[in-house]
Amino acid sequence: MRMHRARGPRPTMLAIAGDSAAGKTTLTRGIVAALGTERSTSMCVDDYHRYDRSERAGLPFTALHPDCNYMQIMEQHLQLLAMGEPVLKPVYDHSTGLLTRPRLVEPREVVIAEGLLPLHTRLSRACFDVTVYVDPGERIRREWKVRRDTSERGYTRDQVLAELARREPESEAFIRRQRREADITVSFGPIDGREDPPGTPLSATLLLRPTIRHPNFAKLIAEVPPSVAHLKLMRDADGSPVDALHIHGYAPEAEAEVLAKAIWSGLGVDQALPSCLGVIGPSVRSEPLRLAQLLLLYHVLRDVF
Amino acid sequence: MRMHRARGPRPTMLAIAGDSAAGKTTLTRGIVAALGTERSTSMCVDDYHRYDRSERAGLPFTALHPDCNYMQIMEQHLQLLAMGEPVLKPVYDHSTGLLTRPRLVEPREVVIAEGLLPLHTRLSRACFDVTVYVDPGERIRREWKVRRDTSERGYTRDQVLAELARREPESEAFIRRQRREADITVSFGPIDGREDPPGTPLSATLLLRPTIRHPNFAKLIAEVPPSVAHLKLMRDADGSPVDALHIHGYAPEAEAEVLAKAIWSGLGVDQALPSCLGVIGPSVRSEPLRLAQLLLLYHVLRDVF
Repeated sequence: MRMHRARGPRPTMLAIAGDSAAGKTTLTRGIVAALGTERSTSMCVDDYHRYDRSERAGLPFTALHPDCNYMQIMEQHLQLLAMGEPVLKPVYDHSTGLLTRPRLVEPREVVIAEGLLPLHTRLSRACFDVTVYVDPGERIRREWKVRRDTSERGYTRDQVLAELARREPESEAFIRRQRREADITVSFGPIDGREDPPGTPLSATLLLRPTIRHPNFAKLIAEVPPSVAHLKLMRDADGSPVDALHIHGYAPEAEAEVLAKAIWSGLGVDQALPSCLGVIGPSVRSEPLRLAQLLLLYHVLRDVF
Repeated sequence: MRMHRARGPRPTMLAIAGDSAAGKTTLTRGIVAALGTERSTSMCVDDYHRYDRSERAGLPFTALHPDCNYMQIMEQHLQLLAMGEPVLKPVYDHSTGLLTRPRLVEPREVVIAEGLLPLHTRLSRACFDVTVYVDPGERIRREWKVRRDTSERGYTRDQVLAELARREPESEAFIRRQRREADITVSFGPIDGREDPPGTPLSATLLLRPTIRHPNFAKLIAEVPPSVAHLKLMRDADGSPVDALHIHGYAPEAEAEVLAKAIWSGLGVDQALPSCLGVIGPSVRSEPLRLAQLLLLYHVLRDVF
């Protein structure tokens, strides 16, 4: 019996976990745009459903529940991709609720796996070089989910709210549990206890766990205007040391650029700072999003160069 | 990065390769019936199509061509099954010509992979403990294909013949090429140069290559009536030594039973000779089929007990 052949260099694996409408796709899109599809591929790991929509209707759990998904096959596919092997990934059609023809996913230099449960098992986590949990806070996530599912997926506001309520116990038990497993958590939102006027761009707080080696923000932050970001050494929920990097939503682009360039120059690459970061939508940009994407780009490129 | 976990004992892998309507399913069915579905699973490896029927219509090759299939994924799935891992296998719906929802295949003690191209690549062949090529000869295969595809798949005789002609170059280039890779080739048919009256049950010739350790037929054959079988030491197409075991289609059941029991007792198992072997269809049985299935059963069970 021969084992798997090595097929060229192994990709750098990035996980972006988070609940529905947390902003995973927006975060991922900028990173893929900066790397290009020749060098990176992204895949959604939410298609490993064991049941289609009509089969799920009679079951006592939602699609968020691990028992509702072929978690072992998700693990297997992540392992194979991490080893540089292609996989034939299942595909779930959100518009019809049916499982359909699978899709070939071939690894590139960087593979981004985004979805609800990429960090659920020890084995799936072990496949990643960098793990991220996106958590805009429940209030903002509900707003985003209502807005997206009513405008893009044809649901009414009441339907979306009912679905959110139905999923809440499983969100708590399985999705949010992954927060503590991530190297980085990204939270978009207003700062707690601050009353910014409506329309103020959202800020971001990045919790940087020392489970991977981050840029030396203690040094970098001293060189950028305080209007851009600040860093706070604190304790994680489990008591371990962690850095909280807060990036202001109102940071002027030119000043945020100072921090962006400082992070980028840490890579030592002879290449301009990518210009496609921070895009939320047509002509809507966010400096906190840009810096969060740039940090993730830093982490995946550090392994590549 | 952790590699695949070992999950209990690795299955014994049996490949049954051959062209369309060669009798692969009939051969497989008896083996699965004898082992039971608790201990064995069979899968068809013809569903790894890269294109569905309408997409293939514009392409310069048929579904037999390796380029028309995700051969690398077939290899990967065979490797995973051989290591005791489940796979999410693609499914091609022959009635609609569409690729559809994949199916979970979990390995049992014995995994039988039957289809057109399981022995096409070195890596796929390396996954198997025992490899078989079924080759009833082109004249008989065409008869079988016309009969099956007109009665069960709704084609006309002319359509089937046209399809056979269209596939012939790829049958020759890719399917029949696997004949030389098998440990055992099974050919049902009349003996060349013999004029048996119509209705005579087909005989079988089994080419037994010393690539695996067969029962000692030189010894066994001396103990059975010559009306059942004979053995001939000969040279393979490439000049290497090979045994040709010929089993007569007109062998009386009671006499063939002597050889069957001799093969079976070689396993040394405390279990009766399975009675479900040799079934072609409702109330149609074949002693050569029974002995061919029994020999394959011997090979897979030798590893299990």
